[in-house]
Amino acid sequence: MTKFMDVHHGMRGITSDQLDAAHRADLAIEDEEGVHFEKAWADPESGTVFCLSEGPSAGAVRRVHERAGHAADEIHPVPLSV
Amino acid sequence: MTKFMDVHHGMRGITSDQLDAAHRADLAIEDEEGVHFEKAWADPESGTVFCLSEGPSAGAVRRVHERAGHAADEIHPVPLSV
Repeated sequence: MTKFMDVHHGMRGITSDQLDAAHRADLAIEDEEGVHFEKAWADPESGTVFCLSEGPSAGAVRRVHERAGHAADEIHPVPLSV
Repeated sequence: MTKFMDVHHGMRGITSDQLDAAHRADLAIEDEEGVHFEKAWADPESGTVFCLSEGPSAGAVRRVHERAGHAADEIHPVPLSV
């Protein structure tokens, strides 16, 4: 299992409720891909959302986000953390 | 106090030791700007580093990173998280 940080652009004006709903949509199906979305942070001003997850591959992370209706623009494996 | 996620590009090949050293350099001076760097994640392959911090302003976060020798390419306030 690897940690991933993915990035969504174009989410300008995202609200707390919308972030919660998007995260719940991921959680509802993540088991099917063996992924767990741990945390998400949003900058409504620039429209950037960062999601931290753990899973077997970037493809698995990508599929959960796509199926939940919010494809990621970047998915970075982050094997190093401090 | 606001949470910030900043992003560094061009860090291809960063090692665990280098990430630790960079984080320690931030911690050593962050008090002077009222910032706390909570966590950092690195993708050595694309050379991307993400840092999560809390502080009074993006400028304060920027100054700590600059003075520590590793200016951030993007600094996003992330008032929303889940």
